Amino acid sequence: MNFCSDNVTGASPEILEALTRANAGTRPSYGEDDQTARVEAKLKEIFETDLAAFPVATGTAANALGLSLITPPYGALYCHRDAHVAVDECGAPELYTGGAKLVDLPGEHGKLSAADIDAALAASHKGVVHHVQAASISLTQATESGTSYRPAEVAAIAAAARPYGVKLHMDGARFANALAFLKVSPAEITWRAGIDILSFGATKNGALAAEAVVIFDKALAAEFAFRRKRGGHLFSKMRFLSAQLDAYLEGGLWLKNARHANAMAQRLAEGLGRIKGARLAHPVEANEIFVDLPEHAIRGLQADGFQFHRWLGEDKTQLRLVTGFDTKEADVAAFIASAERHAARANEKVA
Amino acid sequence: MNFCSDNVTGASPEILEALTRANAGTRPSYGEDDQTARVEAKLKEIFETDLAAFPVATGTAANALGLSLITPPYGALYCHRDAHVAVDECGAPELYTGGAKLVDLPGEHGKLSAADIDAALAASHKGVVHHVQAASISLTQATESGTSYRPAEVAAIAAAARPYGVKLHMDGARFANALAFLKVSPAEITWRAGIDILSFGATKNGALAAEAVVIFDKALAAEFAFRRKRGGHLFSKMRFLSAQLDAYLEGGLWLKNARHANAMAQRLAEGLGRIKGARLAHPVEANEIFVDLPEHAIRGLQADGFQFHRWLGEDKTQLRLVTGFDTKEADVAAFIASAERHAARANEKVA
Amino acid sequence: MNFCSDNVTGASPEILEALTRANAGTRPSYGEDDQTARVEAKLKEIFETDLAAFPVATGTAANALGLSLITPPYGALYCHRDAHVAVDECGAPELYTGGAKLVDLPGEHGKLSAADIDAALAASHKGVVHHVQAASISLTQATESGTSYRPAEVAAIAAAARPYGVKLHMDGARFANALAFLKVSPAEITWRAGIDILSFGATKNGALAAEAVVIFDKALAAEFAFRRKRGGHLFSKMRFLSAQLDAYLEGGLWLKNARHANAMAQRLAEGLGRIKGARLAHPVEANEIFVDLPEHAIRGLQADGFQFHRWLGEDKTQLRLVTGFDTKEADVAAFIASAERHAARANEKVA
Amino acid sequence: MNFCSDNVTGASPEILEALTRANAGTRPSYGEDDQTARVEAKLKEIFETDLAAFPVATGTAANALGLSLITPPYGALYCHRDAHVAVDECGAPELYTGGAKLVDLPGEHGKLSAADIDAALAASHKGVVHHVQAASISLTQATESGTSYRPAEVAAIAAAARPYGVKLHMDGARFANALAFLKVSPAEITWRAGIDILSFGATKNGALAAEAVVIFDKALAAEFAFRRKRGGHLFSKMRFLSAQLDAYLEGGLWLKNARHANAMAQRLAEGLGRIKGARLAHPVEANEIFVDLPEHAIRGLQADGFQFHRWLGEDKTQLRLVTGFDTKEADVAAFIASAERHAARANEKVA
Repeated sequence: MNFCSDNVTGASPEILEALTRANAGTRPSYGEDDQTARVEAKLKEIFETDLAAFPVATGTAANALGLSLITPPYGALYCHRDAHVAVDECGAPELYTGGAKLVDLPGEHGKLSAADIDAALAASHKGVVHHVQAASISLTQATESGTSYRPAEVAAIAAAARPYGVKLHMDGARFANALAFLKVSPAEITWRAGIDILSFGATKNGALAAEAVVIFDKALAAEFAFRRKRGGHLFSKMRFLSAQLDAYLEGGLWLKNARHANAMAQRLAEGLGRIKGARLAHPVEANEIFVDLPEHAIRGLQADGFQFHRWLGEDKTQLRLVTGFDTKEADVAAFIASAERHAARANEKVA
Repeated sequence: MNFCSDNVTGASPEILEALTRANAGTRPSYGEDDQTARVEAKLKEIFETDLAAFPVATGTAANALGLSLITPPYGALYCHRDAHVAVDECGAPELYTGGAKLVDLPGEHGKLSAADIDAALAASHKGVVHHVQAASISLTQATESGTSYRPAEVAAIAAAARPYGVKLHMDGARFANALAFLKVSPAEITWRAGIDILSFGATKNGALAAEAVVIFDKALAAEFAFRRKRGGHLFSKMRFLSAQLDAYLEGGLWLKNARHANAMAQRLAEGLGRIKGARLAHPVEANEIFVDLPEHAIRGLQADGFQFHRWLGEDKTQLRLVTGFDTKEADVAAFIASAERHAARANEKVA
Repeated sequence: MNFCSDNVTGASPEILEALTRANAGTRPSYGEDDQTARVEAKLKEIFETDLAAFPVATGTAANALGLSLITPPYGALYCHRDAHVAVDECGAPELYTGGAKLVDLPGEHGKLSAADIDAALAASHKGVVHHVQAASISLTQATESGTSYRPAEVAAIAAAARPYGVKLHMDGARFANALAFLKVSPAEITWRAGIDILSFGATKNGALAAEAVVIFDKALAAEFAFRRKRGGHLFSKMRFLSAQLDAYLEGGLWLKNARHANAMAQRLAEGLGRIKGARLAHPVEANEIFVDLPEHAIRGLQADGFQFHRWLGEDKTQLRLVTGFDTKEADVAAFIASAERHAARANEKVA
Repeated sequence: MNFCSDNVTGASPEILEALTRANAGTRPSYGEDDQTARVEAKLKEIFETDLAAFPVATGTAANALGLSLITPPYGALYCHRDAHVAVDECGAPELYTGGAKLVDLPGEHGKLSAADIDAALAASHKGVVHHVQAASISLTQATESGTSYRPAEVAAIAAAARPYGVKLHMDGARFANALAFLKVSPAEITWRAGIDILSFGATKNGALAAEAVVIFDKALAAEFAFRRKRGGHLFSKMRFLSAQLDAYLEGGLWLKNARHANAMAQRLAEGLGRIKGARLAHPVEANEIFVDLPEHAIRGLQADGFQFHRWLGEDKTQLRLVTGFDTKEADVAAFIASAERHAARANEKVA
């Protein structure tokens, strides 16, 4: 029973089956096939707008390639200090932008605020040659704290960015989870709110390894294909990437998967919330839970075979628990029961 | 009936099935799983030596990442003027090395010669600050002309490189095909002959999208993992890359696939060789055939529904035909028959 | 009367004259001349050790090139959040390192502390593939707050860095001023304390445009010449760079200039310190003064024709005043008198 | 008597004196001074058009920074196979463009031809994702063979480039020498013929270290200042760069210097041309002479103390002789006399 991450999961059966179907016969390579075109068409429908979409295999590639379209080498990219692009990609955005600077900002519950963005941009020395130039903002949706930006929050950040000519990227590694929580349309939380480029994640939510870079401002798309190829991210047998995305979008599988993961997270949060000494660090608005538990409970859970990460360090008691598209209700219930039991025993000892 | 490339094929059934098997349960992400370790162990056995192996999804990534270990930003990389790294990767080696220079050399039938390498290195101004510094050589095996380097040829190039401290990379996108042709051991044609890093290809020969960067000089491996992650090439659900490679290596599937593709290429070469007016441009030593055919024959083949590339330009009569692990004997026979028929008709007209 | 920066000054007469002397006759280009060798020899003597020294024309080039020797593309460079390399070089370190990440740390009076470095390195996830790898630290001497690191402070930071294999760079744009203040030997504050590479500044202290990158760990020097050339920083008529450095070092001109600038700064600090409502933000340990003055005094000084920068924003009352090798005592006295007069008038009004 | 290069010379007295004049008083730093503005104004007058001009200290910096404006990381830059940018800058264009590819073309007497450019661009796979994208052409004026492009030649190349959206750069390290030879206006050989960006050289022709990047297409100029700063090429005491250029342009010093160097080259060419066994490899159209001399004559010249480079290798008999703004007639005469004498003696022996 592994709650370490949504990437310890395998793939949705529907997506695996799609690979098998895609295997038949010869197909034009490098994305010239029909299925790749169909994925783009489906995304246009889902996002209710014209757009350009490019499949890639990893979220890091999607983010870094997308950011390279809106951040020149002498540019500054603003993001939350916990953002995946800032701390978990070993400098991929720097590689793909040719050395741009990531400017980390604080923000409660993993979110940037329009006010902080505004203040940062006002202080950014736009036009002054000694300083990197404010170019882009990256928002993670859902955030690294498991929260979700509302459309109005994104729109306010976009409004703060616009006077500076700053573009917006959304790292949607858990985009489906955010959407399932927010119950808004894909358009509403992206281009209508001011997002220029979206990393549309599928891997964490049921694909084997597939993301789409969705470019709403099509003028930005012209050079994407060259940058993708140059990064080694153009698949020769593209059918196998596109088939994943095709199945992921088909019949709303992506939202169905996300709704399940979110529901499991809510159940976990409620169950743990009832435990004495437990405290949720952030609102649970997707499929991640950050919870402080008594040390005895943590050790007990580990002894019972549950896997998860201590989030703030090996000597700290905040856990991150991540649910996935295939998390079992029974496992959630078992986790809660184990936590309850060990916490109670600890409380007894204290008492 | 598509002879455009070995990447218009799907995947070997054994490899697709391996994906399904790999799907069960949770697994540590980012390559910490057992299957990834098993792939490395198998490669050690196959190459009869200690080594470090890193799965990636594309040949371009494998090449560019491998080259970045042995070519500093101010370095020069020597390769054949037709090399994939030089002409077909949109500058990926330049991106990953931080701007090294690729020096193209000519060479018959797609091969570099030790004499040309020696001359180039002697003229390379080693140590002179105005010039990029000779750092590495990349050999393609099988070559872009469908020929294969013999162990003695590789060893002679390595001997020419050694006095200059120049390292050797092998782009093995069609390594299995070369090996199946040469009938030598994997060790003999790589590290024993002086290769430091190998891009061990699987995609063209039956995988969906999987290659392994095989590093024989393990001192070079220390930074690979960081460079791979930074390039966006570290898969979170690594099991799905490793499962492909695992199945590819299992029971010699890789060589079996290659032998079939090579056999089909030989048959095609023999069949076409008998046609009046046909001429093979290069010896057929893997699964690619470069053949000049009469224009009438080419048009006839196209009319009959065969797909292939004219190789030297749309107004030229040299074709590249590539066979794959799943090329059908009947298709090869049909191709030959069609070519014969159209060539004969053309000859009649001329006569 | 311009206190904006020490780079609003011209050059020391001795240095200009050296240019004229250097002009005679032909000389080997690109640094093969005797004078360039002499500069290196003088630096060896001054620093009492073997070393490699490379002239360049700007401090930004010196810093970025130096850092590129000790920070790989996937590396992290730790520096003070006000460091010139972090905020005033438009991303030069990122360009030259191939996209490394600068990690900003806070620190009182412009200084990093060994404790903060230790904590940062301990939390840096050394060896974990998702994160850029701690590689180097850059200390500014004198700091951006006009203070100077003591040898023991540098040594403590070096001791914290060593277990992580992290190298030390010193941005010595105002190295002479720090040394003149500290009254320690050049060796003591650099390599003996653990510095691997020093940007030895001359431009701000009397040269036209000349710095030397001084590499104490000579194993790091091998690739410097290639990186300098590649950056466009190798002068063909190198004599004109080296002549500046030669004259700068000759007879201790560098320390004489720095002592004068420091003395002017001390006088300014003392004079301003006596003004009611004035407050020095940092100890004055080189040639920069950061002082809060009453708004009326600031406006009065401006009206009297004095030039300087408001440091924390145009609406803030902290000034940065910089003295130079040629600052006149009379100008300092005039500045103090003007500030006193305007401050007194303001106080009258308030009273 | 050193004919190795025009960079073994010192500086014109007028330029040295200008440095002394520029030294007085304080001045705004980083190019905000009047003299920097005056240089740009003078260049506008000389080139009879609006333009943006940026001083830098080296030709390599001028070239690489200029090229970075018109060549994206996935771009291809076409140049002569002997071009300085291709062979003598240790990969500077690759660094500043973020890894673009330089495509070398042959061409008689150091010149690219419009026909070859046209053929190369036609074969460049514009728009095809596997290949770097044709972006720019760099012409060297005067060429590395000492010849000069005529306006019609440049215009023909520009006409070939235009349909592909390819921009033109001119490496004018010896621009003054070409102009003095061609006797055309600066406008005629640059923007009127289709040049977008010019590296306007001064160092080789009398400056200490100064070049101007002249941007005729001002839309390209917006990001130059950031790229220059990021490269470490923005001088704080910019007055000392601008003063050189100011004096260089004043009263036509630049053309006067070039005319002298050219005249000395012509005299040398004529004198050597009369020697039996001597052969000029290229027309002499600037200040460089490439001449084959009998081995005995070469050794004799060396024994007499003349310095020069053998051009095609230490075992070859082609010499490059470069004259400068301060080459003495007497030295030229002495060189010719020595060559004549030694050649005659050799001929005697043979006879």
